[in-house]
Amino acid sequence: MSRFTFHVSSYSLQNTVSFGIDAHLTGASMSLLVTGSIGLDTLETPAGKREQVIGGSAIYFSYAASFFAPVRLVGVVGEDHPKTLFSVFQGREVDSSGIEIRKGSKTFRWHGSYLADLNNAETVEVDLNVLAERAPKIPQNFLDSKYVFLANTHPVLQQEMLASLKSPKLVVADSMNLWIQTQRPELCKLLSKVHGFVLNDGEARLLTEERNLIKAAQQVLKMGPKFVVIKKGEHGCLLVSERGAFVLPAYPTDQVIDPTGAGDSFAGGMMGYLATQGGITSAATLKRALAYGTVVASYTIADFSLDGLKHADRDQIDDRWHDLKTAMSF
Amino acid sequence: MSRFTFHVSSYSLQNTVSFGIDAHLTGASMSLLVTGSIGLDTLETPAGKREQVIGGSAIYFSYAASFFAPVRLVGVVGEDHPKTLFSVFQGREVDSSGIEIRKGSKTFRWHGSYLADLNNAETVEVDLNVLAERAPKIPQNFLDSKYVFLANTHPVLQQEMLASLKSPKLVVADSMNLWIQTQRPELCKLLSKVHGFVLNDGEARLLTEERNLIKAAQQVLKMGPKFVVIKKGEHGCLLVSERGAFVLPAYPTDQVIDPTGAGDSFAGGMMGYLATQGGITSAATLKRALAYGTVVASYTIADFSLDGLKHADRDQIDDRWHDLKTAMSF
Repeated sequence: MSRFTFHVSSYSLQNTVSFGIDAHLTGASMSLLVTGSIGLDTLETPAGKREQVIGGSAIYFSYAASFFAPVRLVGVVGEDHPKTLFSVFQGREVDSSGIEIRKGSKTFRWHGSYLADLNNAETVEVDLNVLAERAPKIPQNFLDSKYVFLANTHPVLQQEMLASLKSPKLVVADSMNLWIQTQRPELCKLLSKVHGFVLNDGEARLLTEERNLIKAAQQVLKMGPKFVVIKKGEHGCLLVSERGAFVLPAYPTDQVIDPTGAGDSFAGGMMGYLATQGGITSAATLKRALAYGTVVASYTIADFSLDGLKHADRDQIDDRWHDLKTAMSF
Repeated sequence: MSRFTFHVSSYSLQNTVSFGIDAHLTGASMSLLVTGSIGLDTLETPAGKREQVIGGSAIYFSYAASFFAPVRLVGVVGEDHPKTLFSVFQGREVDSSGIEIRKGSKTFRWHGSYLADLNNAETVEVDLNVLAERAPKIPQNFLDSKYVFLANTHPVLQQEMLASLKSPKLVVADSMNLWIQTQRPELCKLLSKVHGFVLNDGEARLLTEERNLIKAAQQVLKMGPKFVVIKKGEHGCLLVSERGAFVLPAYPTDQVIDPTGAGDSFAGGMMGYLATQGGITSAATLKRALAYGTVVASYTIADFSLDGLKHADRDQIDDRWHDLKTAMSF
């Protein structure tokens, strides 16, 4: 009987964990570019309701990543953008000069409910508004970004934005059901150009028609990425690369107030940490990055909108990361 | 913001992992008693169909536990019991003298299908037969058993069997939806008498009406057990005791042929290992036990009926356990 083999890097964990932002890695050399959505969310969960609070993949990602590395945020909103938009990152190293305020357009709005299932949002209403128009332009001074996260949007736009960058070292993309179903050829083209791909379990099964997530991830690897991360919500995440598989449960918590943004915060924590590691994607580095993503997401879900992340700091994140590391060992 | 605290034993892992059966722990001192079902299963999975193969909780549990400790099996079958019943444990330390062949009765039969969902069996047909009658009697020479697993049956019968034992050191029980719904007071009485309780995620939510599994487990702890293990199928398991929570993903495998018996094999591996540890239920010991359960279950699901377990040996199990330990560390 053949058995599944783990290939674990011999890379020493003890001496290489880098906390804080290394002094020699600043500016463009560590800058993490994210392109994604910015929106106004109305959220209903068993814990209550919030109306028109700030949300969107790029917002959660940027806040989460900023615990690790300076972030360059590219996105587009309408004239009706939330007043808090430019104060939300106060005190954080997030360069929001890449946010375009488009005249005559309206901001993306999403109304989601977790009343039936805290693990799966039901979309009550969605108004794409400005997201249904052309993509925002990446500012000239962001084009030298080395680390790039292409949050979910039309795969043609993702490719265009990627093509405009000068010399990215590590590019990771996200997607969604809609593009898998309607833009498969373009999504496959995008996959051939990225280093990593992040998707959830349902999307992995939809993309590959394979129920077993390890087999599904292995199929995605054949489309181009060097590593695939499958997010399983409360069940944690799975990393598959040519070097093997790594599974990580979600941080065990009884504080789940609002799961919105958990996946984007996970990606932010993961990419933020990878940006501090000079683009190394060894098995050991990726595992630590996934654990950081997991921990950051545990703060996001503990309150509505960005309130959970706002109550976290890097020391707490590191403490919780070490708690998880200890709790996972046996 | 309060954060979930892990309490991790300082118990050293390196020097205390006990492989194989310790010479001084033999006979009654390490014997593991299991009472549970024995049946004839008809199984349909995407990989094929098997008709009237051996199954039942006590069968899977016993085979799995016998990699670690001698097992005493108590169960009841009808006159039509499978011919392979007494040869199935050939070469294994399973004392099957506690199997009653009841005259005039028929063996339990179950027909399950995983065609719609490999993670959830759909019961096509079930004939309780002899299981709907009185419980089997525990043989005199089994009454000194120290380690006891009360697999799923009517909680009154579980209590009766437990009461007949002389001085059990570690008692763990399982249950099912049916008894939670119809025999809650008796199930609660049982819970006040056991050290550990094993249940799946759906049962935990049904029992406590709490969706968050950590909160659910904490409520079960209040009913009596010192530790609660919640099985989440392909998503692994969760251990909660007064000392904190431990989460363990399932062994990552792309070999899933037949999930039948995974939960019972998990319990068998866990209890078998605990029996070798003299009943210690420290956080560190329980974590290692859960990892053994996880690994043994990964063999079960790799083939139909007991065929997966039959192709495993203790060395392979230990290798896979170490693979899991290494893969989990970051």
